[in-house]
Amino acid sequence: MNKSEFSNHLKIGEVKINDPFWNKISEIVRTSVIPYQYLALQDKIEGAEKSYCIENFIKAGKVVEKIRQGIEPEKYPVDKWEYNDNNCDKNAFHGWVFQDSDVYKWIEAVGYSLQNHPDKELEKKADEYIDIICNAQLDNGYLDTLYIINDRDKTFTNLKDFHELYVFGHMVEGALSYYKATGNRKLLNSACRFADLICNTFGEDKIKGYPGHEIAEMALVKLYDETGKKEYLDTAKFFIDERGRKPYYYDTEHNTKSKGENYHYNQAHKPPREQTEAVGHAVRGVYLYSAMADIAKAYDDDELFGACKSIWDNIENKKMYITGGIGATVDGEAFSFDYDLPNDLAYAETCASIGLIFFARRMAENEVNSHYADVMERALYNTVLSGMSEDGKSFFYVNPLEVLPIASSRDSRKRHIKPVRQKWFSCACCPPNLARLISSLGEYIYTENDNTLFVNQYVGTDIQSDKTNIKVTSDYIENGKVSFEIECKKPFTLALRIPFWCDEYTISEKFENKNGYAFIEISENKNIDVHFNTEVKVIKCSNKVRANIGKVAVTRGPLVYCIEEADNGKNLQMLTLSKTPNFRYKDGIIFADGYREKADNALYSNYTATAFEECKIKFIPYYHWGNRGENEMSVYIRI
Amino acid sequence: MNKSEFSNHLKIGEVKINDPFWNKISEIVRTSVIPYQYLALQDKIEGAEKSYCIENFIKAGKVVEKIRQGIEPEKYPVDKWEYNDNNCDKNAFHGWVFQDSDVYKWIEAVGYSLQNHPDKELEKKADEYIDIICNAQLDNGYLDTLYIINDRDKTFTNLKDFHELYVFGHMVEGALSYYKATGNRKLLNSACRFADLICNTFGEDKIKGYPGHEIAEMALVKLYDETGKKEYLDTAKFFIDERGRKPYYYDTEHNTKSKGENYHYNQAHKPPREQTEAVGHAVRGVYLYSAMADIAKAYDDDELFGACKSIWDNIENKKMYITGGIGATVDGEAFSFDYDLPNDLAYAETCASIGLIFFARRMAENEVNSHYADVMERALYNTVLSGMSEDGKSFFYVNPLEVLPIASSRDSRKRHIKPVRQKWFSCACCPPNLARLISSLGEYIYTENDNTLFVNQYVGTDIQSDKTNIKVTSDYIENGKVSFEIECKKPFTLALRIPFWCDEYTISEKFENKNGYAFIEISENKNIDVHFNTEVKVIKCSNKVRANIGKVAVTRGPLVYCIEEADNGKNLQMLTLSKTPNFRYKDGIIFADGYREKADNALYSNYTATAFEECKIKFIPYYHWGNRGENEMSVYIRI
Repeated sequence: MNKSEFSNHLKIGEVKINDPFWNKISEIVRTSVIPYQYLALQDKIEGAEKSYCIENFIKAGKVVEKIRQGIEPEKYPVDKWEYNDNNCDKNAFHGWVFQDSDVYKWIEAVGYSLQNHPDKELEKKADEYIDIICNAQLDNGYLDTLYIINDRDKTFTNLKDFHELYVFGHMVEGALSYYKATGNRKLLNSACRFADLICNTFGEDKIKGYPGHEIAEMALVKLYDETGKKEYLDTAKFFIDERGRKPYYYDTEHNTKSKGENYHYNQAHKPPREQTEAVGHAVRGVYLYSAMADIAKAYDDDELFGACKSIWDNIENKKMYITGGIGATVDGEAFSFDYDLPNDLAYAETCASIGLIFFARRMAENEVNSHYADVMERALYNTVLSGMSEDGKSFFYVNPLEVLPIASSRDSRKRHIKPVRQKWFSCACCPPNLARLISSLGEYIYTENDNTLFVNQYVGTDIQSDKTNIKVTSDYIENGKVSFEIECKKPFTLALRIPFWCDEYTISEKFENKNGYAFIEISENKNIDVHFNTEVKVIKCSNKVRANIGKVAVTRGPLVYCIEEADNGKNLQMLTLSKTPNFRYKDGIIFADGYREKADNALYSNYTATAFEECKIKFIPYYHWGNRGENEMSVYIRI
Repeated sequence: MNKSEFSNHLKIGEVKINDPFWNKISEIVRTSVIPYQYLALQDKIEGAEKSYCIENFIKAGKVVEKIRQGIEPEKYPVDKWEYNDNNCDKNAFHGWVFQDSDVYKWIEAVGYSLQNHPDKELEKKADEYIDIICNAQLDNGYLDTLYIINDRDKTFTNLKDFHELYVFGHMVEGALSYYKATGNRKLLNSACRFADLICNTFGEDKIKGYPGHEIAEMALVKLYDETGKKEYLDTAKFFIDERGRKPYYYDTEHNTKSKGENYHYNQAHKPPREQTEAVGHAVRGVYLYSAMADIAKAYDDDELFGACKSIWDNIENKKMYITGGIGATVDGEAFSFDYDLPNDLAYAETCASIGLIFFARRMAENEVNSHYADVMERALYNTVLSGMSEDGKSFFYVNPLEVLPIASSRDSRKRHIKPVRQKWFSCACCPPNLARLISSLGEYIYTENDNTLFVNQYVGTDIQSDKTNIKVTSDYIENGKVSFEIECKKPFTLALRIPFWCDEYTISEKFENKNGYAFIEISENKNIDVHFNTEVKVIKCSNKVRANIGKVAVTRGPLVYCIEEADNGKNLQMLTLSKTPNFRYKDGIIFADGYREKADNALYSNYTATAFEECKIKFIPYYHWGNRGENEMSVYIRI
C-alpha cells in the first residue's frame, strides 16, 4: 500500500448539490421522509407499526430522575430481542433491542439536511428530541434505554446479542452530524460522555469484549476525527484487534465453549485481519469492514488493509447482485456462499447496500482504484434508491431481483420478499438509514489528497476545496454529460472516474488513464466537458451463478432496469429479449423487441420449440419498481 | 360416474411377481431393508438416530401391567411433538408423537413379504414384536404408547396435533397384512378392539372430531373389507363428512376461534366434498383423498368423487413434479400454489408419492382413465424408488430435482435437501413406508371388474383370477416388451394401459383404444405380445413453471433421468443438451451430445454469446442418484 494514495473525502460543508436527478430525491427525503419519520418515532403514523422510540427515551428519563431522587426504579427482564405488550410489562422498554438507534439515525439525517437547507422549525423539533434523549442519560454517561428502563445492573453483559454498542455508535454519528449543522454541542457532549465510559470499560486490562453488531468502531473513528481524542481511535482499534480472538469473548460472556462456528454471523469467528471472505449478517459485516478500512488508513496498517482487500474482492466478484445488493440469504440476513445469488429469494437489505457504500468510500480513501466508487454507484442508484417509494412514505427492507406476489403470500420461504413497500417497520433500520445516506450524499462524491481531487460520483455540485472551486453540471443519468467549470487556486490533478459500465467516452482535455481514473493536470481555470456514452447495454451474469443462466439484465448508465407486470403482463418468465433488441430510450424508459411465449397448458409434454409471438418489452429503472401496487417484477430476462 | 366402471384391485395373494427389474428391488427390501428396520426399531443400528419404538411399547406394557395390579402409574406431560432425553423424563415416552406407526409399517411390510416369501425366522421376529405390542394395549382397546406411558387421562384430547388416530390407522394396516400372510389374528384382534373403541368414541352424538393426520379413514375401509363390519365403513365416512365443518372441531378442541385458515395444513379448512385444490401437508392430503375415493366408491357418492377428480386434476396438472413428487414446499411439508415446482427447494417427500400411489389406485377403481395408473407409474419408478439407496440401507425423505451440496450445508433454506441418503431418521416415516409399498407392489398392478381385467402396470407376474390365469413376462423398463400367456377361464376383456410416455406401440392382437387403455376381447387361450417404443425422449415442462423455463428433462419409458457431477463434472448448470442430442442408450445409461460453457470469470460483463465446447453428457436414472457420495445433481438441463 502506498501512503501517497491515501485521500480524504470532502465533507458536506464543502459540497453543495444541485443536480437534476438528486435534487428531486433529496427534496423527497427533506420534505417527506424526515417529517414522516419524525412522526413515526412518536408513533403518530396511522397504520404503521409502533416504534416506541421516543416513548422509551421518556421512560428512561423518568428512571434517571428516580435514581437522582434516590428512588430504586423497577426492574424488568432483559432477555428478548423484541419487547411488546404481549411479552412484557407496559412500563418496561418496548421495541427491538436497538430501537434507540432509529432516533439517532433520524437526527443524523436532520443534521445533514440542515447543512444543505437551514430550517429553524426542523431544528427546533430535533432539539426537543435531543432534550428528551439527554434527560435519559445516566450520570456515568451510559445511554441505552433498554437497560436503563429494564435493568441498570446488566449493562454490557450481553455484547453478543444486544446492541448497546450499536446504539452508542449511532448516537455518535447523529451527534456529529447535528453538531456540524447547528454548532449545538448538547448531543455531542452526551455522546462523548458515553464514549468516555466505553473507552474506560473496554480495552486491555479492562473488559476484552467487542460489539455484537458493529458500528461503534466506525463511530469512534469519526469522533476521533472531530475531537482528536486518541482514546477513541485506540478503542476502535482495540475492538477490531480483539474480535475473534481465542478464547472467544462471546463464549466467556455466555459461559459456552465453541469453536466459533456460530460467530460467523458476527464476523467474530476469527480475527478480522485473518478474514478473507465476507460472511455472516451483511450489515454487520460491511460496518466492520468499513471500520477495518478506517483503522488500516489511520494506522497505515498494511496487513489489515490486505484483509479489507480480500473481503472486498470476495464481495465484488462473488457475492454482490448486479443492483449492488449484498446479503443473499434471509437466514441471518447474511452473505451466502460464493455465487449464490438467487433472484427470488434475495435478501439484499437496503441497509447492507448503504453499509457497502460506507465500506467502498473508505477503501477509496486507502487506495486509488475506481472499483470502489463503481460499486458505490451500483449500490446507490439501484438497491439504495429502490428502498424508498416515489413519495418517500414507504420503504423496502429487502430488495429482491424477482417477485411473484402469490409466492410472497403463499410461500413462507419468500415471506421476507414484499411485493410493495411497507409503511414503517417496527424494525425500521432501513428507512432512517436511507434518509441519512441520501442527506449526506455530498460526502460520497469526492475524495482528495495533497495533489489530486478524485471525482468518484457524477453529481451536479458546487465544491470548494483549498486547491479549487468547481461548478459541476451533471446530466449523467439522462445522457452521460458532465461539465466542470474549474477555478484553479493552485495546480492540481483532477481524476475522473471512468464508470465501469462505460465503454466509450470523450473528455475535452488531455488525460492519462490509470487505475480506472482519467487524470488531468489542472494549472489554470478551465472548462472540461465529459461525455460518457449511456447506450443501453445487455449484461450477462457469470454462469457460475445458477439463477441467471441463459438470462441477461438490461442497464443504462449506472441504472439497472427491470420488467414489471404492470407494463408487460403476467408471467414475465415467458418473455425473451431479442438478440437484436433495437432498444429505444425515452424519459427514463427503455423499450425493446422481444418475444412472448404462448402458455403451455400441459404440465409435461414432448419437447418442441415453444410457440411465441413478437412483442415489445418495456423496462423501467429497478429503483422505480413496486410503485404501482403488487405485481410481478424481474431484473433478469431470457435472451 | 358410471358404476360399471368400478373395479377392484387384485390382491397380493392373486399376483406373484417375477420381474427382472422388480425382483432385484424387492429382494433388497426383503433381505436388507426389513432386517435393517427390524434392528432400527430396537435402536440397534450404529450411527442411526434412535427410534425408541420398541422401547416405548415395552414401557407402555409395564404401565398396563401396573394398572391391572391397581398401581397408579406415573404421569408425564403430553405437550410436545418430539420427546427426547433433553426435554423429558427418561421413563416417559420418547420419540415423535407418531413413533408407534413405524413398527406397524414394518409389520405391514413383513406381512406382504411373507405372502411372497414365507420365512419362519422373520415370522418369529414379527410375532415377538406383536406380543410386545399387544401387551401394551389398555383393556378398553386403546393403544398409543405416548398417551399410555405419559397420561391415560388425556387420550383423544388433541386430535389436531397428536397422532393417535394415525397410529391406529397404521396398526390396522399392519394387522391386516400380517393376518393375510400368516393367518395369525392376534394383532388383527387387537386392532379391531381399538377400532371398536374408536367407533364408539367418534360419531354423531359422540365426539365429533376427526384425525389431524389422516389415514384412519383408509384403514377403516380396509378393515370393513376384511370384517364386513359396517361401523368401520360408517366411521370412515363420518370422519370425512365431519371434517372442515363449522364450527371447526379443532377450534372447539383448542378453545380457539378461527376462520379455518390454519386448517389448510390438515385439509380441514372446509368439508372435503367442497374441496377442489390439493393443499396443506402433502402426505395427509393424499391419505385423505385416498379415503375420499374409497368412500365415493363404497357409497357410490358422485359428489364426493367429483371433489376427488378436481383435486386429482389439480395435482396432476399443476402440482406434480415430473418425477411424481408432490408437496413442493418444506414449509408444512406441503403442496405449494399452482405451478410452484422449484427444483432445488423441492420437498417431494417419499411418503407423499407413496400416498399419491394409494390415491391413484383408488381413483382407477372408481373410473376407467389411464391417467391414474400413469401417475402411479411416474411416482413409483422415480420418487418412490429414489427414496432408497442401492443397498437398501439409507433413505431419502426429500427428493429434490436439483442438488448443490454446498447449498445444503450453507443455506438453511435448503437444510431439508440432503445430498446423500441418510441411515435412519428419528422421524422415519419414509423408510418403512417404502418397504411396505414395495412389498405390496402386487396390489398396484391389476384392477378388475365383472368384465374386464385392467393391466395398470407392466410387471412380470403370474396372476390368478376367476376369469383367467395369465403369465406376464415383462422387459418393460429395458425395452418396452411385455408378453401375456393367457389361459381363458371365461370370456373377458383385457385392458392394457397405453403409457403416457409412449407415442408408438404395437399389440399383436386387435384392440380398441378408449380412455387410455387398449381393450382386447379374450375368449380363448392366447399369447399377446406388446411392444412400447422406449426411445429416449426430451420433455419440456410447462412455461408456467418458472424454474424450468428454457430447460428440458430426459426420460426413457417411465424413468426420468438426471445428470450427476460424478459423471459430468461440477457446475451442471453450464451444460446444455444439443437439439440433436443423438441419444445412445446402454445398460440403463443414456449418453447424449451437448455443450459445456466455459466459466465466466467476471461476475457481470457485456453480453456476448458464451464460449462453449462440445461434450458428451451422461444421464442416469433419477432413482439412482446420490449413490456415489455427495455431488451435484440435476434433472433439468438447458436446451
